[in-house]
Amino acid sequence: MRTLVDGQPGTVVPVDDRAFLYGESLFETVAFRDRQAPLWSRHMARLDLGCRSLGFQPPRPEQLLAECRKVLPESGPAIARITITGGSGGRGYWPAPDAPERRVIQCRDWPGEIDRQRSAGLRLTISKSRLESGPVGEGLKHGNRLVQVMAARECARSGHDEAVLLDQAGSIVEAISSNILLVVDDQLMTHPRPVVSGVGLGWLIDQPGLDLRLRPVAGEDLARCSEVLVINSVSGVRPAIAIEQYRFRPGPTCRHLQSLWNEQLI
Amino acid sequence: MRTLVDGQPGTVVPVDDRAFLYGESLFETVAFRDRQAPLWSRHMARLDLGCRSLGFQPPRPEQLLAECRKVLPESGPAIARITITGGSGGRGYWPAPDAPERRVIQCRDWPGEIDRQRSAGLRLTISKSRLESGPVGEGLKHGNRLVQVMAARECARSGHDEAVLLDQAGSIVEAISSNILLVVDDQLMTHPRPVVSGVGLGWLIDQPGLDLRLRPVAGEDLARCSEVLVINSVSGVRPAIAIEQYRFRPGPTCRHLQSLWNEQLI
Repeated sequence: MRTLVDGQPGTVVPVDDRAFLYGESLFETVAFRDRQAPLWSRHMARLDLGCRSLGFQPPRPEQLLAECRKVLPESGPAIARITITGGSGGRGYWPAPDAPERRVIQCRDWPGEIDRQRSAGLRLTISKSRLESGPVGEGLKHGNRLVQVMAARECARSGHDEAVLLDQAGSIVEAISSNILLVVDDQLMTHPRPVVSGVGLGWLIDQPGLDLRLRPVAGEDLARCSEVLVINSVSGVRPAIAIEQYRFRPGPTCRHLQSLWNEQLI
Repeated sequence: MRTLVDGQPGTVVPVDDRAFLYGESLFETVAFRDRQAPLWSRHMARLDLGCRSLGFQPPRPEQLLAECRKVLPESGPAIARITITGGSGGRGYWPAPDAPERRVIQCRDWPGEIDRQRSAGLRLTISKSRLESGPVGEGLKHGNRLVQVMAARECARSGHDEAVLLDQAGSIVEAISSNILLVVDDQLMTHPRPVVSGVGLGWLIDQPGLDLRLRPVAGEDLARCSEVLVINSVSGVRPAIAIEQYRFRPGPTCRHLQSLWNEQLI
């Protein structure tokens, strides 16, 4: 059994599900190792905030955790994707007032390329799609992800591992599935208003003694960066070795953050 | 039978469908009467453009029409929602390179309130959610509709029929499920860059001899409007009778456009 729908084994949802129709959903992609998820409470905090923003009844974390463990392997690394949707019903965009949310838990295999990328690094392109701060859901992990999908399609076509997403002002906001950290003149920086408030980034920000400045960095300032790193809750910290014409090496910041990650989260 | 999935009777889709996971889909909501859809070719043109933008193989219109007729009643008005999704597969946001699209056709009952609203008019609120021109999919009818869903939720809570959506500059762009037409100083106007390129609006723009100016109107200019109308391909032209503190009456423009609509499309 790899998938639960509202707690029951199943692999399908009704075509009137509001995630299917309108992307009315929230999700969390949670890394587990031996059925333990070190960042669980951070995922649950973001999901709870999202539910309150979208008018969903927040699910009970202990129920979600029990359901994740039903679909996960007994040991080793694996991923649980938790999806909460607006359920069924309503009239067009108008949600049904009291429709119960739908809850889908999917087990996914651990991506084989992560370990290699943590040491060998990633090659990135700069996406033609520019981000805008959304009118709803800023920071939330909701199911309206066409920008990321289109950027991923473009990035796969050009043979890159990931893509940098800029905002309208040309600042580096994040990557398709990760936040971005940049070392400029020995200062570690990241964008202050990511489109997705990454759980991995949140963990990093809370590390005592870490001097991380929340400030936009322009795309053209990549020439001044000594290191560029991407971070997400599943893959941890991975170095960028190329972004378009710019070249980087995994350096001391990468090694430091990777050992912090390994000590606390693996 | 009310629903076809890839041409077969069915009411469910796999949980790995990319519309369910990321809102990676396009849809058309087509009004039929006695199994005829007068705006069919306009819906198909928008869907074709959407498919090319999102990297989908466009479906064959004649196959879609045959499938709509399989689920529609023999006579009378009804609605077919056609959904084309990115199909299953891929790795996170990265679509599978050659995954076939998924095609869902749903029959929906004709909404009972339309006829009443065409004569009695609508009461609108101004949504707190502001629109931004999206980095992908501007004008397309894609499945990333959280802005509209959130505005609809807000609008239902306050007891209104519809909501006006403004852009960041405070201009009137469109309503949740309709485009908006405003009569200011005897001039009919609508926003030049709607977030959804409405099929009903497109039909209206192409009417010979109609003097419709494509120019933004500020929210505060509602005080100068003699009539406000909403238009979509299912409901046709409906007058607004109230938008927040502003009051309107169905006037000569409304009557004219409604008779144009009735002559050609009903």
